[in-house]
Amino acid sequence: MTWEVHRYAGSSVEGPRYKVESDDIAVEAPLTVKVDGEEFATLVCTPTDVEELIVGFLASEGLIRFADQVKSLSVDAVRGYAYVKLVNRHQRSTEQVAKRWIGSCCGKSRQFYFQNDVQTAKTVRTDLRVSIHQCLQLMKALQEQSTDFQATGGLHNGALCSPESLLLTRSDIGRHNALDKIFGHVLMNRLPVRDKLIAFSGRISSEVLLKVSKIGAGILLSKSAPTDLALRLAQDLGITVVGFIRGDHLTVYTHPQRIAEWKE
Amino acid sequence: MTWEVHRYAGSSVEGPRYKVESDDIAVEAPLTVKVDGEEFATLVCTPTDVEELIVGFLASEGLIRFADQVKSLSVDAVRGYAYVKLVNRHQRSTEQVAKRWIGSCCGKSRQFYFQNDVQTAKTVRTDLRVSIHQCLQLMKALQEQSTDFQATGGLHNGALCSPESLLLTRSDIGRHNALDKIFGHVLMNRLPVRDKLIAFSGRISSEVLLKVSKIGAGILLSKSAPTDLALRLAQDLGITVVGFIRGDHLTVYTHPQRIAEWKE
Repeated sequence: MTWEVHRYAGSSVEGPRYKVESDDIAVEAPLTVKVDGEEFATLVCTPTDVEELIVGFLASEGLIRFADQVKSLSVDAVRGYAYVKLVNRHQRSTEQVAKRWIGSCCGKSRQFYFQNDVQTAKTVRTDLRVSIHQCLQLMKALQEQSTDFQATGGLHNGALCSPESLLLTRSDIGRHNALDKIFGHVLMNRLPVRDKLIAFSGRISSEVLLKVSKIGAGILLSKSAPTDLALRLAQDLGITVVGFIRGDHLTVYTHPQRIAEWKE
Repeated sequence: MTWEVHRYAGSSVEGPRYKVESDDIAVEAPLTVKVDGEEFATLVCTPTDVEELIVGFLASEGLIRFADQVKSLSVDAVRGYAYVKLVNRHQRSTEQVAKRWIGSCCGKSRQFYFQNDVQTAKTVRTDLRVSIHQCLQLMKALQEQSTDFQATGGLHNGALCSPESLLLTRSDIGRHNALDKIFGHVLMNRLPVRDKLIAFSGRISSEVLLKVSKIGAGILLSKSAPTDLALRLAQDLGITVVGFIRGDHLTVYTHPQRIAEWKE
């Protein structure tokens, strides 16, 4: 959408440059998801690819594992509501979803998982290997493609990639939503993921890392930095984290054996 | 903390440059807040200024209005728990906090508020005015100060400012947490806010805008872009949003009368 703004564009020999003009602004909208008649969550999102977003979100929260477990899905875009019916009526209360789960049985960092993450995060086993050159090229492609979406400057971008190219790009003002849209697309189209990578524009927090593990990709590329908790989870869950991909530099934080140059 | 990484630093005449070295990584930790014995929420945060974070978060969620409504607060940093006792035992259920609130009585965009936001977001009335030069200088100061914190590259920074200088800077891997830490500090030290600005490193989403309104500052500065929902809320709540502050450029999105050069 557009918005009237007052802009100051620095000073020239002719004096300060003031303009009043129209600017493109990223749309942000609340979307309340009702599951079997019950309010489940409200997402604040960019209202594009909404069905993918909802399917990915439900899978990420552990309510479904496959897209065909959704019996019906209708979206009231104007009022910002989505109505979901599941094949098997879900039994889990909101409280259970939010509850922190502490255990000592499945590795050191697992104690930080929420209960739904314990159920849905998967250890990724894949023989996929890529070269440094491929990592640099994929991040360059994501950034070039992103300029189309980023007239507004307010979006996160994620892409599902083969080693050679971007297969699918999704954008959202919320970093997790961009990944949930990819997850939903993967489920709705039954795409295999073990031979794919995820490229992401934002920082790698524990939540981003867990999303990638739920989607099932073994390599995560980002131009930004990871946190320590994300790295401990990546170590446990078998995900190769490649960060700070800028120009011809990159840093491999975990499982470097999937990068051809460091393969034993 | 430090982490061993595999780094590729481009290619020179002597061939490709590979290094295995130690890198600084931002710490991310879950913090579960128990209020009067009941689990209230789990924040994923940078574990610094934790008491400020909790006080700011409780105020932001509408459980308290003043710091002295917290009877006791103890933090178990190792296990990631905070135990809060309030002077008046709180009556609000988790469900009520999360529930979306739709009404038509208080302006068009208010329908997007959550119920707790309706209670805590304040329309800001202030005579504060600043110059374009002051906005540019404050954002420059925030970015210079941030480099100290940003060896890790993973943090958001926010500052409480007078028109002349940064008064207080707080950092967190979570954008909302950086603002809640400022909110907590303001409450714990009973600082007046109507004559202050907030400078922020990240994008201006509706949640960021609502935090600024709850803190009570009338001017928000950012180097990044706002969303449309944030701008509609800013319009309603009387907050001047100045975005894309880069070099000697800036864009004023709402209430330009507080910027000296556009004052009528």
